[in-house]
Amino acid sequence: MSNTIALYPLSNFTFSTKEAQPEEDPSVSARLQRLQNNYEDFGMRRTVEGILVVHDHGHPHILMLQIANAFFKLPGDYLKPGEDEIDGLKKRLDDRLAPPSNSQQFDQNHGIDNDWEIGDCLAQWWRPNFETFMPSIGSGTYHGFTLYGGRRSISYPFIPAHITKPKECKKLFLVQMPERKVLAVPKNMKLLAIPLFELYDNAARYGPQLSAIPHLLSRYNFIYL
Amino acid sequence: MSNTIALYPLSNFTFSTKEAQPEEDPSVSARLQRLQNNYEDFGMRRTVEGILVVHDHGHPHILMLQIANAFFKLPGDYLKPGEDEIDGLKKRLDDRLAPPSNSQQFDQNHGIDNDWEIGDCLAQWWRPNFETFMPSIGSGTYHGFTLYGGRRSISYPFIPAHITKPKECKKLFLVQMPERKVLAVPKNMKLLAIPLFELYDNAARYGPQLSAIPHLLSRYNFIYL
Repeated sequence: MSNTIALYPLSNFTFSTKEAQPEEDPSVSARLQRLQNNYEDFGMRRTVEGILVVHDHGHPHILMLQIANAFFKLPGDYLKPGEDEIDGLKKRLDDRLAPPSNSQQFDQNHGIDNDWEIGDCLAQWWRPNFETFMPSIGSGTYHGFTLYGGRRSISYPFIPAHITKPKECKKLFLVQMPERKVLAVPKNMKLLAIPLFELYDNAARYGPQLSAIPHLLSRYNFIYL
Repeated sequence: MSNTIALYPLSNFTFSTKEAQPEEDPSVSARLQRLQNNYEDFGMRRTVEGILVVHDHGHPHILMLQIANAFFKLPGDYLKPGEDEIDGLKKRLDDRLAPPSNSQQFDQNHGIDNDWEIGDCLAQWWRPNFETFMPSIGSGTYHGFTLYGGRRSISYPFIPAHITKPKECKKLFLVQMPERKVLAVPKNMKLLAIPLFELYDNAARYGPQLSAIPHLLSRYNFIYL
């Protein structure tokens, strides 16, 4: 019955904050240049993100990061060349959401398991190129997730016809949350639990990748503990 | 590597026709009344449909039925009370697409395997009630898939909050097509191979269930034979 997944209530999870994690690039064009350079040096960019599911009053909710009170993203990031995707995703989830290392030390000393349980790959998104939709408003002002919003419009849940060398493959993995966990959120972000009914059919607010999560999860039967 | 699926080219499949399969009900209201009566007698309606995937020039295509040159549906139908969903889906696929029984006899005599290989459940769609959106145009004229179009608007890929007794659960299963197969299509329908890029982001034409198929398949890696 690998299609049955136990969900724990949102109230079982403890949220704290940690140091801000600013954007890597000072501008959209700097970001695109970096991606292009990395592609030339290392080949296709591989990104991994986690779909962390909990429940609230018996309805599934997805844990998502919100940046600048506006844009949503799943926890995760791109992998180093050759890095294993499961180990890499665990490390990215720790980077984004694990408490700072002194409390990790505390957990280890007290036998608290803070490993991540990575489940099925639920989706792959392919990006044929780095020419991003450039927002025409804002006259060049950089804003981390204006870029992110634009990027979404040119990824596809399949390799587009005639594309032999996609520039990025992003994999979304189900992350099975344990009964309890402490999560520490970078100060420049919020962690929100978004119900499936809010995501569904709501690409206008969440973009095509996040609004499709209800579809990706629909083959599972959830048990609400 | 259960995430890897071999696809055969559309040109490997042979299409013939068979007797028309008309709609079960004479009107929308008769249909809703029948569904309601069946729910009271037998409980939640269980429907199974197949996602049959082939490729054309290295891009995945889904085999879909088109009725009245307008509406699309996957092959499949509702199950009898207590009927096994995998066996039931195979029987519904035979009803819809297998050649008439004299040629089935021919196949059996010649050792041709016409069984269906049912793969993963890819999605479940839940229908909270039978009150269907009633098309306001057409002044009551019945048209099989005006109803179908309306129905789609009130199914969800999750059990909606506060719904304890959904009226229907429709499961979509991946059907792995063999290297070659003869399919016979009822005369009142067409069988079309729709590419993923046509379905994607196209709920306006295909409805929310069919347009989400690219998402459901995105976790698979296809091999084009």
